Amino acid sequence: MSILVVGSVAFDSVETPFGKVENILGGSATYFSTSASFFSDVKLVAVVGDDFPQEHLDFLSSRNIDLAGLSRVRGKTFHWKGKYGYDLNEAQTLETQLNVFADFKPQIPKEYSESEYLFLANIDPELQMEVMNQVKRPKVVACDTMNFWISSKPESLRKVLEKVDIFLINEGEARQLSGEANLVKGAKTILSMGVKTLIIKRGEYGVLMFNGSSIFAAPAYPLEEVFDPTGAGDTFAGGFMGYLANTGDISEKGVRQAIIFGSVMASFNVEDFSLNRLKRLDYKEIEERYRDFKTMTHFIGLP
Amino acid sequence: MSILVVGSVAFDSVETPFGKVENILGGSATYFSTSASFFSDVKLVAVVGDDFPQEHLDFLSSRNIDLAGLSRVRGKTFHWKGKYGYDLNEAQTLETQLNVFADFKPQIPKEYSESEYLFLANIDPELQMEVMNQVKRPKVVACDTMNFWISSKPESLRKVLEKVDIFLINEGEARQLSGEANLVKGAKTILSMGVKTLIIKRGEYGVLMFNGSSIFAAPAYPLEEVFDPTGAGDTFAGGFMGYLANTGDISEKGVRQAIIFGSVMASFNVEDFSLNRLKRLDYKEIEERYRDFKTMTHFIGLP
Repeated sequence: MSILVVGSVAFDSVETPFGKVENILGGSATYFSTSASFFSDVKLVAVVGDDFPQEHLDFLSSRNIDLAGLSRVRGKTFHWKGKYGYDLNEAQTLETQLNVFADFKPQIPKEYSESEYLFLANIDPELQMEVMNQVKRPKVVACDTMNFWISSKPESLRKVLEKVDIFLINEGEARQLSGEANLVKGAKTILSMGVKTLIIKRGEYGVLMFNGSSIFAAPAYPLEEVFDPTGAGDTFAGGFMGYLANTGDISEKGVRQAIIFGSVMASFNVEDFSLNRLKRLDYKEIEERYRDFKTMTHFIGLP
Repeated sequence: MSILVVGSVAFDSVETPFGKVENILGGSATYFSTSASFFSDVKLVAVVGDDFPQEHLDFLSSRNIDLAGLSRVRGKTFHWKGKYGYDLNEAQTLETQLNVFADFKPQIPKEYSESEYLFLANIDPELQMEVMNQVKRPKVVACDTMNFWISSKPESLRKVLEKVDIFLINEGEARQLSGEANLVKGAKTILSMGVKTLIIKRGEYGVLMFNGSSIFAAPAYPLEEVFDPTGAGDTFAGGFMGYLANTGDISEKGVRQAIIFGSVMASFNVEDFSLNRLKRLDYKEIEERYRDFKTMTHFIGLP
């Protein structure tokens, strides 16, 4: 099965306590696609400017990511500049140059319209809705968003949430969207908006999944070196959706396994800047770390 | 097996977004003992003033907590006053009246000196050392501390750590003591101080255990109502040590189960002010919640 993803492909300039990089490959759809490509075929819909180098396109193609939906237009590619302190959980945005992304109107190629797995990365909820209108009802629609859309386009976002199956959001955004300081209450509120499965990302503290009947708690992988958290959420989403698409198992059992695969992928991604770690990752390492997660969380049940 | 605990018995005045209480029963040894008493016999060494009411003594006795080591002296009982905002992870101390606790010199009754399980709650590390000198080498010594001792008595604390088996500390304190922002690195540093097992408490994010050869990650129980986090850490320690003493199994398997029992106890404690929830708790509820932890963290391993 293949996954259709719509989001951003960007240049990032990132500063962390461990180093500084400029104009490196980034963007939500880039991280998502690369991560998902370890498990499934991926079709990427995004826009870049004419400054986007061939080497990045070659890299994405080498991962078997279908670029028929990646339009290249006159102008400069989206550029994000951010900084992290020792508390690597929260980025400080220093600059956002939307450039060609400002006029992004996702056009879903006809041959993509029957995709069974759709991921709407963090873009304007109105565009997320337009994408959903261009595809037949997929088996699974998942989406992400951010604080900016929660406050600036709450009604459009609510309409999107009525239609998605799985909603991925970080902890602070879950509190903001629900208006609840307590996360369990907040999750109930968000589920009542129509979402079937809610995944709350808590950075180094892991993930909580709520589906109305049960809760799943997964830790993050405790790392000795966290170099750059940029893209961790999208890399998580890529591993998560990639595994779902690979197995087709969207039962709670399958979703829980997919969450661990997502966590595994995110844990690798933060070990280096940009997609550098994913570029040198192989599937054996992914399986090894999945087994580490199993060992790390195991305890004996009561008889 | 029974546990010897040395720590504080106190009056607390606490304000949370959900209510306000004054001069209620509190103190590290109180929370610890009550929690541990669900699993094991407990011997309590602490000091109270002549203002300490009989009803609290009656409650502790009703839990089969041995009070032969609880001295009652002229003066006022230790009083802590604190406040929590919506972020219930961190207390703001408004007032600390040490009162009779200022001159506390723990005297371990002769009949306690062969205790096999010893918990040194958060008191002056010099007193923790004096306690260790008064008992034969127990099977397990665990201790807690706080930021105040880490900065004011680092050398005394280091001497204590050379002698304890299990060290329980919260996340911020682990960073402070190790001088490492990264928790995995910090844990290595702390283990190198002589501690065999390190348990890092992360409030609503759960617990990480490090023993030099493996890591165990346990979530906290996601609660819809967190009323008052006071005593959560000591209640965790009580459930943890209580279970170890009950089974005598101090293998990693046993320690992991004990961590879940500790997490279960802490999750109940925060549901009400003071020890109110523990007062109306029964063992069936503890087992039920342990099973919930198992369900909540379960996922299928790879073949």
